[in-house]
Amino acid sequence: MSPQQTVQELFRNADCVCFDVDSTVIQDEGIDELAKFCGKGEEVKRLTAEAMGGSMTFQEALKKRLDIIRPSVSQVREFVDKFPIHLTPGISQLVKELHERGVVVYLVSGGFRSLIEPVAERLNIPPSNIYANRLKFYFNGDYAGFDENEPTSRSGGKGLVVRRLKEQLGYQRLVIIGDGATDAEASPPADGFIGFGGNVVRDEVKKRASWYVTDFQELINSLTIQVAK
Amino acid sequence: MSPQQTVQELFRNADCVCFDVDSTVIQDEGIDELAKFCGKGEEVKRLTAEAMGGSMTFQEALKKRLDIIRPSVSQVREFVDKFPIHLTPGISQLVKELHERGVVVYLVSGGFRSLIEPVAERLNIPPSNIYANRLKFYFNGDYAGFDENEPTSRSGGKGLVVRRLKEQLGYQRLVIIGDGATDAEASPPADGFIGFGGNVVRDEVKKRASWYVTDFQELINSLTIQVAK
Ligand SMILES: [Mg+2]
Ligand SMILES: [Mg+2]
Repeated sequence: MSPQQTVQELFRNADCVCFDVDSTVIQDEGIDELAKFCGKGEEVKRLTAEAMGGSMTFQEALKKRLDIIRPSVSQVREFVDKFPIHLTPGISQLVKELHERGVVVYLVSGGFRSLIEPVAERLNIPPSNIYANRLKFYFNGDYAGFDENEPTSRSGGKGLVVRRLKEQLGYQRLVIIGDGATDAEASPPADGFIGFGGNVVRDEVKKRASWYVTDFQELINSLTIQVAK
Repeated sequence: MSPQQTVQELFRNADCVCFDVDSTVIQDEGIDELAKFCGKGEEVKRLTAEAMGGSMTFQEALKKRLDIIRPSVSQVREFVDKFPIHLTPGISQLVKELHERGVVVYLVSGGFRSLIEPVAERLNIPPSNIYANRLKFYFNGDYAGFDENEPTSRSGGKGLVVRRLKEQLGYQRLVIIGDGATDAEASPPADGFIGFGGNVVRDEVKKRASWYVTDFQELINSLTIQVAK
């Protein structure tokens, strides 16, 4: 089998699928949208570009962007209430197909739990199957930082989450799906990686992915269409 | 002049007075009352006794007690709404007399800003004149720790607050008043310390205080009664 066929075969027999959220399950980047909502879109965009340049760790980049936005609890609440969730086409059906097959689905994100919980709810993924960063607030609602102990707040964090899932819950065929370098880097320990380019195509991810799809329909088809042997 | 007369003279001419809060301005210990309210009174009491034994730093003791209580934002809100403030008799008049003389009054506490703000409001002390610890919460309201950068969260923290006040605002005759060892230890840098035993008498504090009062009326009198020279 080609490397692509191996991943396709693995996906059809997966016992666990971990999805990235921003630009994968949803069409936007949550932190950028929150920044815009808080009037800090341009500043954060500049910093993101700088971070992409390379010299910053994931945690530094996260901290710096949040130090610019400093979202209060009421801003986050308003954002969650008002900003529509833009699910990527096909994701609802894909998650439903996986659930029907008894595959356990997780959302593993470098974004924020408070923004992801409503997404999970839409997809019938329980909150306990979310691994993401947690914002902190003071009693008066002011921004108070983020949980720096959450693995997803650090470089290599998605890999750590995947390794723990495999160790603690015994998944044997765990596939991670996402658009970003942090998703690709989580495999291994993930048994396979599927690159997703339906919202944004990142060349280095495309290069690393032995199976790269731009439409979730391809994944749905691979589950539902009987393959001639 | 005797050491006691020196402090009395200083107090009558103070330009800044810093009050401890728990067992000084109010009759209770805020953290113990919050613990009781959250059903963790006995556990926290045991830990406080252990901490008094000596081997723990202030920050460790604070962290351990909070790790037991883990107050959610709604528990703190309910506590603040329902638990009556028990001002120590005489404190309102004392603060009023100080304010009328143009003395700047601060509350400097190892307790929590969220519990102290309503006390300050009752005494017409602006929120900006509170130095205290800040609880943190996650978006869903769960307890998320405390601000470990706040000087009052650490041993020697009150002294640090006092030194900064003197350096940054130029107070020349700063008096700190409280029932505890951390209050006594803040002088110096405070120009003087008045021990307060109106709610609880701590022998080691009484020994260290050149002026020890058990009733705020004594302090009011020293301000309002003309002394024969
Ligand atoms: Mg992504
Ligand atoms: Mg006290």
